[in-house]
Amino acid sequence: RRLAHRDVGVLGVPFCKGQPRPGVAQAPQRLRDYGMLKKLETMGYRVHDYGDLQFQEFPDDYPAWNIKYPRSIGASCKKISNVVEEVTEKGQVALTLGGDHSLSIGTVHGHAMAEPNMCLIWVDAHSDINTPMASPSGNIHGMVLSFLAKELQKYVPRVPGMEWVKPCLSTKDIAFIGLRDLDPAERCIIEQYNITCYTMHEVDRMGIHRVLEEALHSVNPNLDRPIHLSYDIDSLDPAVSPSTGTPVPGGLSIREGMYIAEEIAATGQLTGIDLVEVNPELGSKQDQELTLFTACEIIGACFGKRRKGNVPEDYVIPTPAESMEGFTSS
Amino acid sequence: RRLAHRDVGVLGVPFCKGQPRPGVAQAPQRLRDYGMLKKLETMGYRVHDYGDLQFQEFPDDYPAWNIKYPRSIGASCKKISNVVEEVTEKGQVALTLGGDHSLSIGTVHGHAMAEPNMCLIWVDAHSDINTPMASPSGNIHGMVLSFLAKELQKYVPRVPGMEWVKPCLSTKDIAFIGLRDLDPAERCIIEQYNITCYTMHEVDRMGIHRVLEEALHSVNPNLDRPIHLSYDIDSLDPAVSPSTGTPVPGGLSIREGMYIAEEIAATGQLTGIDLVEVNPELGSKQDQELTLFTACEIIGACFGKRRKGNVPEDYVIPTPAESMEGFTSS
Amino acid sequence: RRLAHRDVGVLGVPFCKGQPRPGVAQAPQRLRDYGMLKKLETMGYRVHDYGDLQFQEFPDDYPAWNIKYPRSIGASCKKISNVVEEVTEKGQVALTLGGDHSLSIGTVHGHAMAEPNMCLIWVDAHSDINTPMASPSGNIHGMVLSFLAKELQKYVPRVPGMEWVKPCLSTKDIAFIGLRDLDPAERCIIEQYNITCYTMHEVDRMGIHRVLEEALHSVNPNLDRPIHLSYDIDSLDPAVSPSTGTPVPGGLSIREGMYIAEEIAATGQLTGIDLVEVNPELGSKQDQELTLFTACEIIGACFGKRRKGNVPEDYVIPTPAESMEGFTSS
Ligand SMILES: [Mn+2]
Ligand SMILES: [Mn+2]
Ligand SMILES: [Mn+2]
Ligand SMILES: [Mn+2]
Ligand SMILES: [Mn+2]
Ligand SMILES: [Mn+2]
Repeated sequence: RRLAHRDVGVLGVPFCKGQPRPGVAQAPQRLRDYGMLKKLETMGYRVHDYGDLQFQEFPDDYPAWNIKYPRSIGASCKKISNVVEEVTEKGQVALTLGGDHSLSIGTVHGHAMAEPNMCLIWVDAHSDINTPMASPSGNIHGMVLSFLAKELQKYVPRVPGMEWVKPCLSTKDIAFIGLRDLDPAERCIIEQYNITCYTMHEVDRMGIHRVLEEALHSVNPNLDRPIHLSYDIDSLDPAVSPSTGTPVPGGLSIREGMYIAEEIAATGQLTGIDLVEVNPELGSKQDQELTLFTACEIIGACFGKRRKGNVPEDYVIPTPAESMEGFTSS
Repeated sequence: RRLAHRDVGVLGVPFCKGQPRPGVAQAPQRLRDYGMLKKLETMGYRVHDYGDLQFQEFPDDYPAWNIKYPRSIGASCKKISNVVEEVTEKGQVALTLGGDHSLSIGTVHGHAMAEPNMCLIWVDAHSDINTPMASPSGNIHGMVLSFLAKELQKYVPRVPGMEWVKPCLSTKDIAFIGLRDLDPAERCIIEQYNITCYTMHEVDRMGIHRVLEEALHSVNPNLDRPIHLSYDIDSLDPAVSPSTGTPVPGGLSIREGMYIAEEIAATGQLTGIDLVEVNPELGSKQDQELTLFTACEIIGACFGKRRKGNVPEDYVIPTPAESMEGFTSS
Repeated sequence: RRLAHRDVGVLGVPFCKGQPRPGVAQAPQRLRDYGMLKKLETMGYRVHDYGDLQFQEFPDDYPAWNIKYPRSIGASCKKISNVVEEVTEKGQVALTLGGDHSLSIGTVHGHAMAEPNMCLIWVDAHSDINTPMASPSGNIHGMVLSFLAKELQKYVPRVPGMEWVKPCLSTKDIAFIGLRDLDPAERCIIEQYNITCYTMHEVDRMGIHRVLEEALHSVNPNLDRPIHLSYDIDSLDPAVSPSTGTPVPGGLSIREGMYIAEEIAATGQLTGIDLVEVNPELGSKQDQELTLFTACEIIGACFGKRRKGNVPEDYVIPTPAESMEGFTSS
């Protein structure tokens, strides 16, 4: 499988209604401009860029309970789901560039439609598993998993715009890494449903190596399930990803962030990736560059870039031709 | 015990004579203004703020040997000791906000008077165990433990102002974490008396998890002894606590600093806490904010804030009322 | 052996032709001005400073293949090799302050001439083992080890200026630590020759303690071989060593950098040290100070400075004279 997936289908989602800060919608284009896709081509991938998704306007998108923009987000995620499903079925790795994390309702859904045996690794400072009734903010980027997890539907009301969503994951299929800012309902759900969860406390306790080993073992013991990796840039420490809407100190180092991506890439099962919550309008110019750099390193690692170096398959160390010995250009 | 201690007695010590830099005396008020105590109330604690201690003036407080301000510091610490003893006996967790580390002569003493079986965890870049004769600087904040440890009294002369101090700890009751800048006498004492000591070298070697496990096992093997945690903010790396008088690079990360507090809090035995050496007049405005933030995170963790989230005891995940299904505000 | 080596021979190499950025040639003097050698004297070493090496000019030093400045660098390294050999034979620890990493062709060579049983620990973001034919840049600081390793000579043409080099190491004698930016030929060589190699991925996976343990076990299982430590400041994270020509994010923390030096120093076998690639003209004034600080801490640790403190051999904790009890200066 690992060698088979040399095709990447890229989807830009210039979307920001799942949270309150504008700017995050500019990320897909800024990541392209920074050279993220060129880098993948250099690494030998065929990159199919499906451009940025266009979204329908809902002028009267009133809150449902305190959920903000349910119809806009619902319709967008439906579209995203369809594209991701299609891309995945073509045998391409679906790489979705956000945009805020609410888009993962679409990407995870679409990936699961194409790969029903899929599991999900959620790397984030937040667990994004608030229910619509429990969310203190009403921002959908913090409720993504409550819409997707079968076991949680009793807590989720019928939300306008979200009627199409088919809960397609079990809480057993989810592994969290990097959490450090959870609301009571989120903690409660994680405990009641015994969801695999490695907060920063566990990263400190166990080290990133054992965290990955156990997280993968928990949701993918035989490494035979397709993996969806939903990577929220705010999982990383603000020191390396300052330009994001809800930064939380005490995050993953860039080394740990790369390690996570390297280890998941090495399974050969990574078929869907979200990179979300880069907000290239927050912070200083230097903060923005740094965050884009970090994002590109993470995505490079997701596609097999290794810190030990990469050797093309047919590489041979060159030897000096006998006749050239001692040759000096002048 | 853990549940019993829902009362916190807060003592501000606007004191700076134990070291040479002004500004550290402003920390108690700045920490209050930053919201540290409000945070504890939000977490469900009853906070009893005893305000800032007022100190007697000693106009002719000449050095004894090279010890600076012995009478001022001695009298202040005596007062501090009495307050902490009283607060502890009321069943409140004594939280003392410094001020420089010399105040811990008072807090540890007072805590030990109320809880003779107490042990001490000292988190610091420095060991603060210089004797008055060996101290190169003469600053009392670097000699605190030499006054308190029974076994060290042969090295300690009769110092004016300190006559009231009853050495109340054994060197066996002390565990150091985070050290990285020690004078020869300090190293020598730690070795001769075999004091439990995890410098940054050991943190690097063993990881913070094993350090905590072993440190606690060493001074509190059955977790049945009350714990005094004396937390010098300079234990943390200057990257996260720049505003302090004697910063030393290569310190604890904010993650490790929180981990220490979380693990000690989880014993249910933490009954006295010092937070010292925040100097909110050093560094840039940003440095000062960062240091206050870090201090508040550490204290939050000392009182049970967990990175995995905290759930109120009677919390129930809300479910949508049947009648509300599909309701949309307009 | 550990106690015997109280003499340090210091060689400044104000050399920058192995890479494209000027400024690195100023490092030896800047490190002296910062107090590096005074620090060693304070620690009890006799420091013999042989000053800065003077180099021969080669006005027509055309590239050979794409190798830049082969004659200049070759002649300089020959001179360096002779000095290091001499210094080592005097029983002094050879401390060479770069300059760029190409100087290590000379230092490793000279050290090996005096100590044929020597092994080499290379701490670097880069493996510097490109062959002249494979190097993308033509900068010799990235080819050092290809000239020195016996097994690699079939890939190395006869280069003008380098004729004197006697390959004096086996690939089995080399251990890499800290790598994270390798070219295909470099990765290929490391794998084909099974060179001991701990990239940042392995540091993340195993922790710095096990990395050191295994690296030392691999090249020096009985700790009876003299060690050459070639320390490229770019091994450290740009957060602590920003002023260097080819910084790579995701590097060693200053704690890990010190730990490496402490552990190697503790073997008592460290007889040759290079400190290279400090470029005190890159970055802000603050960046430069920080990089010099970091470099001095690393070198201090190489010479036995410990974070737990150092006690002079004959140290005795002072006790108060009876007659002085209660004395107060006035
Ligand atoms: Mn998220
Ligand atoms: Mn997040
Ligand atoms: Mn202290
Ligand atoms: Mn301190
Ligand atoms: Mn190098
Ligand atoms: Mn390098």
